[in-house]
Amino acid sequence: MSRQALVIGIGTGNPDHLTLEAVAALNRVDVFLVADKGTAKQDLIGLRTEICRQVISHDRYRVIEVPDPERGPDRGRNTVQYQDAVQRWHRERAARYADIIRAEVGGDGTVGFLVWGDPALYDSTIRIVQSIRDHGRLPLELTVIPGISSLSLLAARHKIILNRVGQPIHITTGRRLVEEYHPGLGDVAVMLDGDLSCSRLVHDHPELGIFWGAQLGLADEVLISGALAEMIEPIQRARAELRAARGWVMDTYLLRPPADNG
Amino acid sequence: MSRQALVIGIGTGNPDHLTLEAVAALNRVDVFLVADKGTAKQDLIGLRTEICRQVISHDRYRVIEVPDPERGPDRGRNTVQYQDAVQRWHRERAARYADIIRAEVGGDGTVGFLVWGDPALYDSTIRIVQSIRDHGRLPLELTVIPGISSLSLLAARHKIILNRVGQPIHITTGRRLVEEYHPGLGDVAVMLDGDLSCSRLVHDHPELGIFWGAQLGLADEVLISGALAEMIEPIQRARAELRAARGWVMDTYLLRPPADNG
Repeated sequence: MSRQALVIGIGTGNPDHLTLEAVAALNRVDVFLVADKGTAKQDLIGLRTEICRQVISHDRYRVIEVPDPERGPDRGRNTVQYQDAVQRWHRERAARYADIIRAEVGGDGTVGFLVWGDPALYDSTIRIVQSIRDHGRLPLELTVIPGISSLSLLAARHKIILNRVGQPIHITTGRRLVEEYHPGLGDVAVMLDGDLSCSRLVHDHPELGIFWGAQLGLADEVLISGALAEMIEPIQRARAELRAARGWVMDTYLLRPPADNG
Repeated sequence: MSRQALVIGIGTGNPDHLTLEAVAALNRVDVFLVADKGTAKQDLIGLRTEICRQVISHDRYRVIEVPDPERGPDRGRNTVQYQDAVQRWHRERAARYADIIRAEVGGDGTVGFLVWGDPALYDSTIRIVQSIRDHGRLPLELTVIPGISSLSLLAARHKIILNRVGQPIHITTGRRLVEEYHPGLGDVAVMLDGDLSCSRLVHDHPELGIFWGAQLGLADEVLISGALAEMIEPIQRARAELRAARGWVMDTYLLRPPADNG
């Protein structure tokens, strides 16, 4: 018999977006492991704690913060040396998690990992658990509980469908957007974009529309939509204000070519 | 004061995948409008009824089936005549829905529309409600409740992330897949594919992997994954068997290029 590992999508911070399956899963967890990302994220950890408090009906669970190992310099991404360093870092982290689970979770116990949004989109938690199992040599039976992603919530709040009729949707990162973009991709959703890379598309694609949302599901949620060329400055201002007020901002957006047949 | 319209994502048929927000929304609805798609879908209507029965804590709601107006022949898609016919059909449907809402839902009442999966992905319900409001000339205050999409559930069941590290995700339809496909799109998720179009990619892209799932969330759920070239026949067989057993099959899949840096 091996320990259970539950990777639970919890949406973007509003407990109402938990599924009934996620609520049941949260209630089954003995120990939650939370990566300690430093004080800047203390607010986010607070949100997670509040979600647990609201929906878990017992007080037998524990939350353990796992400090991340020191990460080497983020340079020379393509060198063999860099790749080796990343791999070493991942193994160290896996070993650290495995040690904590062995020490803190009983042999038939359940360890839980909370994931913002949906574990299936631009999140590394599933890989971490597989790495704990494989590199940490700790048998774990993994179950993944899907969650409402920030993209789903963005669409719901703007009352839009992510695709136009019969057209594709492309999901990419801020890092790749400018190099990748062309209108044949369909509607393009952008994740992990720390500095609104879409601003660099305004010149070549003044026809694009944007649907932007930040702190989706939270009390300070902001939505802006319209022509990219007109809205990019208001969005940049709103984003800076949100960051100043809370210390962090989580945002995502959809870029839409103008209507033709859709 | 206008009537409320709630478009509620209910996942793929398993009540556990409802969010707390969706459960609350279902409990606020006076009248559910359900498109009547003929006897082939009677089974699906039964699933929806069962979800309502399980999570709605009162018996004051009603479910009204709305027969779809006759649709013209599906030919000459690009002719002006065809486009006109489609528009006329959409307006007739909107007018019919508007009449039913006026007759059956009080002036401060709430009408509900249940959507499989997530209303943001390849679903027309939001457009229908906007059309009821605009073409049916019926004021409606629209709220959209996001749901767990079949893609989220596919990824959760296979315990995968839809993207490789830092890479894009492309979501497209069976109709477009073969024409659109190239490895630069990243991982490609396919929706609305009635006949496994990926079989036509095997020859040119024998390197692709596939993660396939059918009847996701239901008792007869089936998952198959592996090399596309090896798995396409088992998947075709499984799909035919599911359809024969239940009268319908709902499936989706992800195509993944081989690992390089991801």
